[in-house]
Amino acid sequence: MRRIFNIRIAWIAIVLTCLESGSFKGAAFAQRDALASWNAGPAKQAITAFVAAVTKQGSADVVPPAERIATFDHDGTLWAEQSMYFQIMFAMDRVRALAPKHPDWKTKQPFKAVLDGDLKALAALGETGFLKIMPLTHWIVTARHPRFNRLYTELVYQPMLELLSFLRANSFKIFIVSGGGVEFMRVFTERVYGIPPEQLVGSSGVVKFQLLPDGKPVLLKTAQIEFVDDGPGKPAGISRFISRRPVFAFGNSDGDQQMLEWTAAGTGARFMGLVHHTDAEREWAYDRKSAIGRLDKALNEAKAKNWIVVDMRNDWKRIFPFEP
Amino acid sequence: MRRIFNIRIAWIAIVLTCLESGSFKGAAFAQRDALASWNAGPAKQAITAFVAAVTKQGSADVVPPAERIATFDHDGTLWAEQSMYFQIMFAMDRVRALAPKHPDWKTKQPFKAVLDGDLKALAALGETGFLKIMPLTHWIVTARHPRFNRLYTELVYQPMLELLSFLRANSFKIFIVSGGGVEFMRVFTERVYGIPPEQLVGSSGVVKFQLLPDGKPVLLKTAQIEFVDDGPGKPAGISRFISRRPVFAFGNSDGDQQMLEWTAAGTGARFMGLVHHTDAEREWAYDRKSAIGRLDKALNEAKAKNWIVVDMRNDWKRIFPFEP
Repeated sequence: MRRIFNIRIAWIAIVLTCLESGSFKGAAFAQRDALASWNAGPAKQAITAFVAAVTKQGSADVVPPAERIATFDHDGTLWAEQSMYFQIMFAMDRVRALAPKHPDWKTKQPFKAVLDGDLKALAALGETGFLKIMPLTHWIVTARHPRFNRLYTELVYQPMLELLSFLRANSFKIFIVSGGGVEFMRVFTERVYGIPPEQLVGSSGVVKFQLLPDGKPVLLKTAQIEFVDDGPGKPAGISRFISRRPVFAFGNSDGDQQMLEWTAAGTGARFMGLVHHTDAEREWAYDRKSAIGRLDKALNEAKAKNWIVVDMRNDWKRIFPFEP
Repeated sequence: MRRIFNIRIAWIAIVLTCLESGSFKGAAFAQRDALASWNAGPAKQAITAFVAAVTKQGSADVVPPAERIATFDHDGTLWAEQSMYFQIMFAMDRVRALAPKHPDWKTKQPFKAVLDGDLKALAALGETGFLKIMPLTHWIVTARHPRFNRLYTELVYQPMLELLSFLRANSFKIFIVSGGGVEFMRVFTERVYGIPPEQLVGSSGVVKFQLLPDGKPVLLKTAQIEFVDDGPGKPAGISRFISRRPVFAFGNSDGDQQMLEWTAAGTGARFMGLVHHTDAEREWAYDRKSAIGRLDKALNEAKAKNWIVVDMRNDWKRIFPFEP
């Protein structure tokens, strides 16, 4: 995978941020296009205008760095939508491959269900049971997508990686706010997006602290769902984990509608964005009738309220980092 | 209140951190004692030795900046233990004082219960109902402590403010992990400790997203408890909010024991500290038999495992910032 986050440039950006104000920094970055994979158009224009407005000293829209909170949905916003079906198939493959080294899995759930091919029993264990497989199998770092024959972690959107870097260089603090399991995401978000694990908000199960007989403390995952970070759960998760209301939010489906509404309802300058999957050739085209990542009500609201809708086909010059 | 966080010094520290490695920074700080309110002794020595070890390039104990997570309990660790009784009394006072401006409070809980003096009804509303009063009344920024005749937010520990600054200057990321309500703390932690609201882990109630009839989105607090961040809840909260295991943790009671155990069980250099309230003259003296902030089992474990126990009377030259 192409190295997206050039450490040296990030480092220089930090030093410049420390040393001087917006204007000096702006001059240093003027030499290159921070959003090179975005075609010129209303979406790119709206992003750069917003960032310029909130970072300009003396501007009426200026937002202090501590309040520059940006939240991004994950699936379909930062990387290609990963259907649960694919995730389950790959996780099951990995469990089968690792089983010879773990004789106890034959009698231990959720592994037993996987090895028996008992999808009914696996489903009965719920999302939490399923999430238990994920970190153990680390499927995500080895599994390849059947259409692109690429690692799943390569199916990230190049324009979004540039947007994350651009926001960071302008002192935004970025959080992923996803309906996915938070443990699952933590395996790779720091490496892939430069977003540390403490800046993830996701769905979670109840964990219990226990001392083992030898005195070693462990956190045990239970089957009880603690929090579902989707739809109306997203503003609740933001309130719980971040507290501050975002000034910038990006999603791609009706599951992100409330996060965008919550962002929009704050005072001062705001940016609400939706990725519209319109490119069947390079990625996929889906919206109102899609079972996964449905974009229907949120699209209506975006149009009514002039939120930014990214037309993937027209707005993104390049979609994936591996494209030539 | 004396300004504890000298903005200019913090700024210089950031620039130095950006520009150069530990040695250069060390030289710049050698001129003054970053922990001036700590008497020389084993506690101060252990803190400075730990920070030196984990920040020294090439040291066997070095910890990368991203993993320098420090967690602090709040009540009795960063500021004087605030008994729930005092909190309720002050909050009720404030509600009564503000009531003439809010005629709807006469019929609206939890205000009605307060105005009726109906403690039973108030208690029935639970912690969540009680927490509703807190941000509204902002009692904390106006209430004075009956013994010291000082604002509650002045009853912070000067040595701990210095420790927070010292850790920050050495690239630690600091979280408060408290059994208290997270909404309550968010009113003042940034101003008082320099700890932003997204770096607080605390107890919480379920909040629900709703669109009002006029389309305005709101988050409604419910009476349902979501998470109790105390005792075994602290490692669970750390896992959920921070994910990374702390390398440095400070508490003062048995409610912090599991957080310290969780911290200690990681690999590499670790610092586990307890504040022992031993100064009846300048603050309070309490430990094994105290109803609030009981320090009993954790004290035994600290002694058995050589965790650092701060003897407030001997280790702290000054306790509160307002002392001469």
